[in-house]
Amino acid sequence: MTLSPYPVVRLKPKAQAARAVRHGFPWIYDNELVTDRRSRSLAPGTIAVLEDAERTPIALVAVNPGSRIMARVLDRDSRARIDEGWLRARLVRALALRERLYDAPFYRLVHAEADGLPGVVIDRFGDIAVIQPNAAWAEVHLPALVAALSEVTGVSTVLKNAGGRARGLEGLDDVSRVEIGTAPGAPVAVPMNGALYMADLEGGQKTGLFFDQRPNHAFAAGLSRGAKVLDVFSHVGGFALAALAGGAARALAVDGSAPALTLAEEGARRSGLEARFATRRGDAFDVLAALAEEGARFDVVICDPPAFAPSKKALEAGLRAYERVARMAAVLVEEGGFLGLCSCSHAADLGKFRGACVRGIGRAGREGQLVHTGFAGPDHPLHPQLAESGYLKALFFRL
Amino acid sequence: MTLSPYPVVRLKPKAQAARAVRHGFPWIYDNELVTDRRSRSLAPGTIAVLEDAERTPIALVAVNPGSRIMARVLDRDSRARIDEGWLRARLVRALALRERLYDAPFYRLVHAEADGLPGVVIDRFGDIAVIQPNAAWAEVHLPALVAALSEVTGVSTVLKNAGGRARGLEGLDDVSRVEIGTAPGAPVAVPMNGALYMADLEGGQKTGLFFDQRPNHAFAAGLSRGAKVLDVFSHVGGFALAALAGGAARALAVDGSAPALTLAEEGARRSGLEARFATRRGDAFDVLAALAEEGARFDVVICDPPAFAPSKKALEAGLRAYERVARMAAVLVEEGGFLGLCSCSHAADLGKFRGACVRGIGRAGREGQLVHTGFAGPDHPLHPQLAESGYLKALFFRL
Repeated sequence: MTLSPYPVVRLKPKAQAARAVRHGFPWIYDNELVTDRRSRSLAPGTIAVLEDAERTPIALVAVNPGSRIMARVLDRDSRARIDEGWLRARLVRALALRERLYDAPFYRLVHAEADGLPGVVIDRFGDIAVIQPNAAWAEVHLPALVAALSEVTGVSTVLKNAGGRARGLEGLDDVSRVEIGTAPGAPVAVPMNGALYMADLEGGQKTGLFFDQRPNHAFAAGLSRGAKVLDVFSHVGGFALAALAGGAARALAVDGSAPALTLAEEGARRSGLEARFATRRGDAFDVLAALAEEGARFDVVICDPPAFAPSKKALEAGLRAYERVARMAAVLVEEGGFLGLCSCSHAADLGKFRGACVRGIGRAGREGQLVHTGFAGPDHPLHPQLAESGYLKALFFRL
Repeated sequence: MTLSPYPVVRLKPKAQAARAVRHGFPWIYDNELVTDRRSRSLAPGTIAVLEDAERTPIALVAVNPGSRIMARVLDRDSRARIDEGWLRARLVRALALRERLYDAPFYRLVHAEADGLPGVVIDRFGDIAVIQPNAAWAEVHLPALVAALSEVTGVSTVLKNAGGRARGLEGLDDVSRVEIGTAPGAPVAVPMNGALYMADLEGGQKTGLFFDQRPNHAFAAGLSRGAKVLDVFSHVGGFALAALAGGAARALAVDGSAPALTLAEEGARRSGLEARFATRRGDAFDVLAALAEEGARFDVVICDPPAFAPSKKALEAGLRAYERVARMAAVLVEEGGFLGLCSCSHAADLGKFRGACVRGIGRAGREGQLVHTGFAGPDHPLHPQLAESGYLKALFFRL
């Protein structure tokens, strides 16, 4: 037996974690590990061999003594070595999936645990990649990860985005920077569903664009031929531009952010859709109320709000907010029209979110059929043992 | 107040049903209604006014004293009249949805409660409609329903399919017949996802073709360019023909039914895909075992079995069967290939079905990412209060 270059961390006796890890579960919580002075003093991001209580190695893990998720499984082969070759293999595998799914290199390339790179999110925008190292091990190994990324994909620019909320839990800073290449200096054009979206990779939300809604944008576009469309919480024109590319007669994008709407307008121009596109800046609830006041009606209304229920604590208030969105949006839908309601809240599961939407529609005095339930696109795969965590839900009702 | 032409049925005091119906729930169970000699003697399918315990009318319902679902809400306006005009209005609304969704008139036109016609299923195949009156009221009103159907859609032939299992629970016979027009006498060609499927509307399963899998066929087709595809429980070539139309290199369809495979072959011929298409008849488990024995490997494997868990009683055995399918299919998938697993079991909810699939994949010694979760297509809308009942689930794993 070769001597491992890695230190050992050990599961407590009877910890269910051993069985879970053997069945593929990727996390070990702090109360499942034997914590002594040695293990507590491991530097965040240390690679270690995980042993069960009988000292049998069961996996290679990344340890962060400061995190509730104290170890993340990197490889179920405890003899693996985490080096650039290992990182390359993971990236090659991730890339192969996306190349099968998409014709153009614009997608989420790595979706953390599901792609075998715990806590790592990488979005690709053609020649540019934006990486979010949201776990300590990825921060420690960032130079190797960036080198492997550049080699496997051929991207010339890699931007580090340190804005992820999870970084705080891992004890990481929030300093974004250019890892290799040069920052684009201007928004990047991203083709999706027949439209061009403008993504601000440096100053924008998350990594500048939400790839996850792509199939839901497509579904909405399929409903929108000849339709008058309202896209609330539009960001850079998500549903509106797809609907226009799909033949919508008109689309109105509502958002609270002037920079986002400027990008949406630029996207509409670049897509040749500006003649049918309009924006309205303001608080979404205020604009929904104002539109109702004005007697405005739309064939298709879509609301894609920020996470109203980001945590279990916020669940009840979040569900009330989703119900309110549904109620205020439903009154704007023409008879026989469509209402699309989205949630990106981890805490609100599909049943609870659907219940809130149905209540809101009912309180608006409307009835609906549920015609479609959509999730994040296939470039956002789920780890099979974390599949409950599918955060994005999109429900399309016909009223 | 106009005198209603309909008899009255009344909810028991404190029956939660009053509140549920006011919130849109479409069913009243036998233990929620006051049952006396008069109500028990109502003919199955009688239209009645539903009153709450305080004698306030709350809905118009169809009553079947012999059914556990003793009343089904037809209209929340208790002053409505169920006549051909009322039926036409429901069909016009159902048709408008499908015409927005599809370019060609091949779809599920009416999906029971969700389309406001409880227990009624209508599939449309161009000029032909197949109707399943699976509730007593629809059987009683079938002539008016067929007349309205013909008028609204212009179909020249209406076939009644009495093979639905629900008819037994409603005390209805199983005699299928031609309602208007003439039986086609030969399988009908149905365009979906770029292929032609042959549907036997008289002798086939259900109404001859499963429209519900259309978006899941499309997702599989999107993975299949250049791929070697295995379609197990293929029926008339469901996933196989869509995959070939999407550019698959080869597809093998497995089914236990020789007539179904003959239709699949005819569909492949009519689609110009026969050179890349093959069939293999046999018990699916036997064929899966034989293929493993032969060392066969495929880039995409899809299994769309019949309902293994049609009822709660059958749940445990059904989940074991799904696990077995997943295990036996997973070993046939190339490294980096895709495994699609479907369930049309009401009793197995999404979480339980996913769990069975993940266990099966694990027992095959494989690991997977869950890349897509799909449901029935939008021509199979869900009643918002029965949305838990979404029976069809399709999970796509990348191994």
